[in-house]
Parts: sequence; C-alpha cells; structure tokens
Amino acid sequence: MTDFAATKARFHLPEGVIYLDGNSLGPLPKHASDRMAQVMQNEWGEMLITGWNKAGWMDQPTRVGDRIARLIGAQPGHVVMGDTLSIKVYQALASALKLNENRRVILSDSGNFPSDLYMAEGLISFLDQGHELRVVAPEEVEDAITDEVAVMMITEVDYRTGRMHDMKRLTAKAHQHGVVTVWDLAHTAGATPVDLAGADADFAVGCTYKYLNGGPGAPAFIYVNPRHANAALPALSGWLGHDAPFDFELNYRPAKGIQRMRVGTPPILALAALDAALDIWDMTDMAQVRAKSVALTERFIAGVEAACPMLRLASPRDAAQRGSQVSFAFPEGYAAIQALIARGVIGDFRAPDIMRFGFTPLYIDEGDVDAAVNIIADVMTNRLWDADAYKTRAKVT
Amino acid sequence: MTDFAATKARFHLPEGVIYLDGNSLGPLPKHASDRMAQVMQNEWGEMLITGWNKAGWMDQPTRVGDRIARLIGAQPGHVVMGDTLSIKVYQALASALKLNENRRVILSDSGNFPSDLYMAEGLISFLDQGHELRVVAPEEVEDAITDEVAVMMITEVDYRTGRMHDMKRLTAKAHQHGVVTVWDLAHTAGATPVDLAGADADFAVGCTYKYLNGGPGAPAFIYVNPRHANAALPALSGWLGHDAPFDFELNYRPAKGIQRMRVGTPPILALAALDAALDIWDMTDMAQVRAKSVALTERFIAGVEAACPMLRLASPRDAAQRGSQVSFAFPEGYAAIQALIARGVIGDFRAPDIMRFGFTPLYIDEGDVDAAVNIIADVMTNRLWDADAYKTRAKVT
Repeated sequence: MTDFAATKARFHLPEGVIYLDGNSLGPLPKHASDRMAQVMQNEWGEMLITGWNKAGWMDQPTRVGDRIARLIGAQPGHVVMGDTLSIKVYQALASALKLNENRRVILSDSGNFPSDLYMAEGLISFLDQGHELRVVAPEEVEDAITDEVAVMMITEVDYRTGRMHDMKRLTAKAHQHGVVTVWDLAHTAGATPVDLAGADADFAVGCTYKYLNGGPGAPAFIYVNPRHANAALPALSGWLGHDAPFDFELNYRPAKGIQRMRVGTPPILALAALDAALDIWDMTDMAQVRAKSVALTERFIAGVEAACPMLRLASPRDAAQRGSQVSFAFPEGYAAIQALIARGVIGDFRAPDIMRFGFTPLYIDEGDVDAAVNIIADVMTNRLWDADAYKTRAKVT
Repeated sequence: MTDFAATKARFHLPEGVIYLDGNSLGPLPKHASDRMAQVMQNEWGEMLITGWNKAGWMDQPTRVGDRIARLIGAQPGHVVMGDTLSIKVYQALASALKLNENRRVILSDSGNFPSDLYMAEGLISFLDQGHELRVVAPEEVEDAITDEVAVMMITEVDYRTGRMHDMKRLTAKAHQHGVVTVWDLAHTAGATPVDLAGADADFAVGCTYKYLNGGPGAPAFIYVNPRHANAALPALSGWLGHDAPFDFELNYRPAKGIQRMRVGTPPILALAALDAALDIWDMTDMAQVRAKSVALTERFIAGVEAACPMLRLASPRDAAQRGSQVSFAFPEGYAAIQALIARGVIGDFRAPDIMRFGFTPLYIDEGDVDAAVNIIADVMTNRLWDADAYKTRAKVT
C-alpha cells in the first residue's frame, strides 16, 4: 500500500498554504536540497571534469529515464531525459513525420497546450513542404483520424479542463489508418496511470516539473516505441545522440535505440533535483495514486458545487474522463484566484476564465481538500476579491 | 585592475589539484552552493508557483543573458539563455538559412566541434531541400566564402588545437558575399575578448559550463544581431518565444527581438548556479583576463617544450592566433593524460592524439603553471603511464 502520510512528510510545504498547483509546479522534496548540495560539492566541486565518469553523469539521462519509464508504462531503456518539453515535441514530431513522409497532415486538437502547436507551426514553416496543422475540437479527434493524416499529436490530458483522451482507443484507430502518434504526457506523468507499451504509442514526451516534482524548468523526457527506436531520425542530431560521441567523427551516425534522442550535454544539476524527487515516487503504486486522486477530486467538486453555485464545472464530471485536476469557469476567475492565493489556497488561472486546481495525493489529503473548499466558499460567496486590481489578463504561469 | 588572487579565492579547488580543464568544465564557485540552496529553499520551497513572478524566474533567461552580453561584446537585450549549445546551433542555423533561402551551401570547417556539424547534418536531412554542408580545412575557410554560400557556421576557437579564427575579417568577407554568419563561442566566451557588435556578427551561440563556470550541463546562450532580431524565425518556436505566452493563443506570433529565441520553460536551478558564477566575472576586465591568459599559455609552452621534446605543440605558436588553451600531440596521449590526472594535473584528451590544457586566469596562476610543468616533465620524461591499461580510446569528455 502506498503510505500517503509518508509521502506527504517528504515534501516541504509552506506554513498556511494548501497547494493545489502541483499540476503546474510540484513542491520541493525535503531531501532535494541536500542531494543538490552533495552533487555540487562532492561531485562538481571535488571530481570536476572526472564527474562525467566517476559520478555517472554521462548516463544520468537514461538512468533517470528508466525511473520515469515505470510510471508511464514503458520498459527500461525506452525513455531518455533532456531539453525541454517543447524541444522534445519538435524531435518526436520531426521523427514521426519522417516515418510517414508521403503524408502531409499533422492532426491535433484545440485542447493541446499551445507550445505543442507552436512547435508544429515552426516546424511546418521551416520545412516548407506543404504540411498542414489540422486543429480540431478535442471531441472531433477520433473522427478526424484518416488515411490522410501523417501524425496525430495529442496531449492526453487537457491543461485547461483536465479532460482526458483515451490513448489506447485513439492510438489503435490511428494505427488502423497508418497514422504515427505523438503523445504529450505533461499532465499525465505522475497524475494518472499511463500504459505506453500497452497502447502501442509511437512517441511520447512529457515534462517533470509538474506532478513529478522535479523543480522549476526540470528536464523533459521522450519515449520511443522500440519498434521505431532504430529507425527514427531525431532531426535534432546532437553529439550525445551519436553512436560514438567521444570519437569526435565529422559525420553523424545515430546511436542505437533511445540514445539517439539525446542532443547536447545533459543538465546535471537539474537532473539531480529530479532524481531526488523520484525517490518519493519509488514509494508509490500508480493505481493507488490514481484511486486517491479520483477520491480527492470527487470530494472537491462536491464541496465546491454545494457552496459556490456561481462556479461552473469546466472539467468532465465523469472521473474516468478527467485527469488529476479540477477546473471551474468563472468570468472574474483571475481576480478570484489571486484572492485565494492571498488566503493560502494556491490554484492558478488559465485564460480566458478557468480557475484550475490540481490534486496530487503525494502531498494533498482529504483535510486539505476540506480546508480549501471552506476558503473558496468564503471568498466566492462574499466576493472577497479586488475586481479593479485584476482587469488585466493573467501574467503568471 | 582585475584582482586575480581575489577571483581565485572565490573558487573551490580541490586539495592537490592543478585544474587545467576549465575549458571543458569550470570549477565550482564557492558561493554557488549557497545560492542554489537559497533558490531551492526560499524560492521553489516557499514561493512555489508564484516564484515565476515573485522571484523573477520568468525574466531570468534575459537577465543572465545581459550579464553574458558584456563578456562577448553585445548590448543588453541581445542575448538570451536556454537549452543546450547544440539546440542553439540548430536554431541559429535554421534562422540564418531562412534569411538566405535562395542559397544552399552551409560552410563550416573540420575544426568545428562535431556536434555543430551533426546538427547541420540533421537539419539538412530533415529539410531535404538539397542543402550541402561544405566542410573545409580551417585555413581554407576564407577562400571558401563565395556567393554560393548561404551560411558560414564557424567555431571561433578550435576545441582541439585552440587555433582562433579572425571573426572580424571572416565576417566582413562573408557579408561582402551576402553570407549570413553563425559563430560558436564555446571556447571563446570568458576565454578571449569577443566583439560581436564590432564584428557585425549575425548570430552567435555558446555554452556556459566551460570558461564561464556555470556547472555541468549549464544552459546555452544565443545572440542575434539587432538587425535580424525582428526578422529571424527561430524554427524552434516555443511558447516562451511567443509574443504573449500567457494568452495561450492557438497560433504562434513571434515575440519581439531576442525573446523569440526562447523556447520552453527555463531551467531555473541551472540558471541559479550560472548566475552565481557570473558574480565572479563582474570582478573582471576581459582585456586583463586575456593578457594574463596569454602570459600563462606562453609560460606553459616554454616550460613544457624545454622539458618534453617528445611533445609536439599542436596549438598556434603565435598567441594572437590561440585561444586560452594549449594542446600537445602525443601518440600515447590518452595514457599520459590519465597519469597526469593521477598526479593531480587535470587536463584532457581529444582523439586521436591531443593532450589539452586550459588556462583560466580566474583561478590559475603562474605558480600553478610551474607546478604543472614540473609534474608533466616528470611523467613524460620517465614515461610514468600505463600504456597497456589505456589501449582503448578516451571515454571522458
């Protein structure tokens, strides 16, 4: 059994704060600062350049990748860390397009995180070969999978509403039509069980600063289905994706398997913080995390709806179709979120009118949910926000 | 006057080590661990998501970029941090190619760092529009600049030999022929004075874990000539390069100026270490750093050549054509370097036969040079290495 009291005790949570924004930036694991100090002093400080071998820095991207693989239904050796999620989107998309180079349509949906769409736009415009980014409504994705589509690029859980796509069904239909899939797990990894191997997903990417608690701007990951791993060309073909980086050959030869998705020198300090955060994930079972997440979101929805009729649920009511967040639509949502933050309930706002709350069983429990509901009820019922002060749109992430 | 004793006192240098590998990974600034702990505990730990505004994380890439701008002859607002050097090479090269899209040749040289060539190869292969990567010998670059060339992509200082290109002259000739320039400053930033604005360089990129001491895998930088800043399209068009990232629009609109070269969420922890390292650079004058670097390399060459006739100088003898490193060619160089490391003189090896030593006046002084020369003389004269143990090629960076 996952001991959620024990996992909660591993996080630094500021006094007086109920943190419902772990879907944007996870909190600090208490031991992460010590781990970082150790890596800085004992590895960087003492080993200097020899840390690349002695401290195992060079293998850190695959070693950490293997720890994440367990949480997303992948086998060891199929995930590697590096860069940012946007860069990994580009790399996956470029690889996927080359595997299907006679087609010209990239299918996505309007619930995708904009950066994924921007990366696709940049890629299309740079390629200049007549590709089309076809963005449909989330509920239209399934019907839009046709033989014309080269790549379906979808974020599994919608960053605004928490609506969840059915990875297995969409991937199966995609494959029936010869479509290569790219799944963005930004709001899934560490939030809901993922079964990349079971779904036969082609490529997947994700970030680690949300539910995985890796720290602000923590490195991204990429998964490549072993079926493609020796065929996919990464487009971003850096030296650490070379078959023999330290031979310093003048010509690129892709490494075998997932290694070819590496690009430049890995961010060792950032990986140290993430690695520490993953220690806590080793205490968990993902099915139990999901069960508790569902219980927390159900409890939150019931509490808020009972007390705040002015808030409209923007997330699916059916927990099976919902990630680990709950969103409510409210016209003065930005101002209301600021008032909640001032009262210690940290959620966030997403334009145009979404008040967003993340539920992460590793450090949020029923008592937190109830306390948050009480504060939200007070703030909303008594309109305790400064409407004038927040006429401008949100500037915070 | 730069007080080099004072800068040296700011670094953690392990007992018994003479560190001549700061051209690969700079040492730990003593205060960097405290700075990191402060960012982790007081910012990430206490501010959580609000750190993006309250702690200024969102502006960190340009704020740190401005600190580096001073060291490479750029104005504030023309440099931004992010990603790795290889990714920034791709971005600069892609942008440069689009500015010259009727031409098909990328000119580089065989002294370029292989990752730059690999990124160009990956880009060309992905584009599939008949581009040619034309790699000439370093001394042939100038003659190879013709009206056929779209982009000249050159690393200013050769990672193996330390040979330095003349940025001003090559850029001027490039512009006479309508060629856009991409300069890689990996072995220049913090090593030699750079005058990007004076040379009218078009794009420049670099890493910060070498002479700038930002830590293993520290973020890269990119410079865009203000003449191009609102015309260049970054290809890697991520949300933080959008004109209004937090409006979450579905379509990409590039931000103004250097901001458009941002891609994903910035690596705040890695930037904190780098920012701390740059405090030491604020104590320096680059011309004085260069003068001392030249004095140290001259002293080292004279000492080693006097004692070790078996070593052949692989760096230019003329200091004006040399970066801040000295390389010697020696067939058993890998084994010899390992023996030197065991004796506390840390240099490194680059295939096939280069023994490489970096000289960084911020923490290396004349006494270190003399001590290193004595140890090298002993090891080389008495052949104090284990030739059998090192038949394999180097596996360290």
